[in-house]
Amino acid sequence: MAELAKATTTEPTGEPGRRTALLDEQWCIGPKMHGGYLLALLAQAAVDELADGTGPDDGSRAGAAHDVPEAVTGTFLRAPDPGPAVVTVDVLRRGRGATQVRARLDQDDRPCVEIALVLGAVPAPGPHEGDISPAPVALPPFERCERRPVDTPDGRGGLPLMEVVDTRLAPDSLGFLSGRPTGEGRLSGWAELDTREPWSPVGLLVALDVLPPASFDLGLTGWSPTMSLTAHVHAVPAPGPLRLTQWVDHLAGERMHESCRVWDTDGRMVGQATQLAAVRR
Amino acid sequence: MAELAKATTTEPTGEPGRRTALLDEQWCIGPKMHGGYLLALLAQAAVDELADGTGPDDGSRAGAAHDVPEAVTGTFLRAPDPGPAVVTVDVLRRGRGATQVRARLDQDDRPCVEIALVLGAVPAPGPHEGDISPAPVALPPFERCERRPVDTPDGRGGLPLMEVVDTRLAPDSLGFLSGRPTGEGRLSGWAELDTREPWSPVGLLVALDVLPPASFDLGLTGWSPTMSLTAHVHAVPAPGPLRLTQWVDHLAGERMHESCRVWDTDGRMVGQATQLAAVRR
Repeated sequence: MAELAKATTTEPTGEPGRRTALLDEQWCIGPKMHGGYLLALLAQAAVDELADGTGPDDGSRAGAAHDVPEAVTGTFLRAPDPGPAVVTVDVLRRGRGATQVRARLDQDDRPCVEIALVLGAVPAPGPHEGDISPAPVALPPFERCERRPVDTPDGRGGLPLMEVVDTRLAPDSLGFLSGRPTGEGRLSGWAELDTREPWSPVGLLVALDVLPPASFDLGLTGWSPTMSLTAHVHAVPAPGPLRLTQWVDHLAGERMHESCRVWDTDGRMVGQATQLAAVRR
Repeated sequence: MAELAKATTTEPTGEPGRRTALLDEQWCIGPKMHGGYLLALLAQAAVDELADGTGPDDGSRAGAAHDVPEAVTGTFLRAPDPGPAVVTVDVLRRGRGATQVRARLDQDDRPCVEIALVLGAVPAPGPHEGDISPAPVALPPFERCERRPVDTPDGRGGLPLMEVVDTRLAPDSLGFLSGRPTGEGRLSGWAELDTREPWSPVGLLVALDVLPPASFDLGLTGWSPTMSLTAHVHAVPAPGPLRLTQWVDHLAGERMHESCRVWDTDGRMVGQATQLAAVRR
């Protein structure tokens, strides 16, 4: 079982901004790579390229490293398969407070995912006056929630990702499995890496896309391919399982807009995401 | 007074994917261009480039045009000034259901804003089973709300944008002006174009960024420059003023995460946005 940190490693090619990747089949949903895994791999490639690189430097290197993906938008073009891929990293601007990067994953010379990425420094801990942070979603304890199986009941194919991400839905989010969704359009639960390695800021990009589509809780059981996913990472999570909730903001016709929030074991909101997905009815 | 449609027009240069723009000073906040205006200009440039262009074609042109910005993420690199600028449009993929584009605005050979854009077709009207759409924010009638002035009371400079976008905050969102913010971190109001031209799907990108920072309602009156803004457009708005609400999702240290929702006069939610902004205390 590979650690997420290892599964998202890319290798420099010697050509600036160009790295090679090996997409790990363990991080698949059905036969295709998981979207959050692809975002994490691209963000990590950008962080590593900045650390290795000899690109333009306006002084930021003297200060804190920019290795937190403060805002990431992934545009999903084609679903890549496990196996070799190429990552291209373009630094758009290096600033004191943030570095902006674009990165793309190609497979067989075809673009698969492109991300727009704002990288920042690890935020200073400790509360400030006026801070606002929503309270964590209420969940039964991690140990009392059942781990999601690798096999789906409808025979639509396995979920290898569930081996590497120990994902546990709250009991009241399980209705869709027996044809009794709540109709609210919300799923909540826990996520912990199977290796028990702590979630990193880059790893949160996986967590922010790990729950099933919230449309399942509306009785819409078709898959909903992500078209665009925007994740914001607020902080370095405390060790331990993450609390997650994901809900349908808006659904009309062939399109769904979903939001997700994530809290760490200290009860701090450490990330949030919104996505545009296609709805297949 | 230029129409928004005119103020966001760009001209082809003859070189594929390259267009010229004239950033209209009327669409400024203080001395700098408004972020939503820049997103609208770039999205419109992408739509026009697709219509003019002779790029790769996998059959989508035979079907509906893709001219609705279903998902746009703008990464803000440098704030451009009014005046000439250059737009570069790169089509990443043309599909049946959507076209993915990247576009960038440069001024004086320096990149200012880059967008990731998913363009789709005008969605079929009419409700479907399982649709979810949040109820519109409650507001006093448009006529009973006061239009925001072009001059700011603190002398920090004018808001020319308020001449072209008739923006009216609800009375209970005005507390920040007299040092009595509600502390909830939410501002709500109306927005109508001064020309009374109907809001277009591309125009919604302006509306989704037109309210003051919701942090004003927390008593944090420093400006909060947008670092990354993601807007989703759901539908073509019905004519008339838009209802808007914008709130702080999360605020910690030097960073704020804001969300915005927009409804048309038929009470349909037609767009939503999230942004990462810097907080200056």
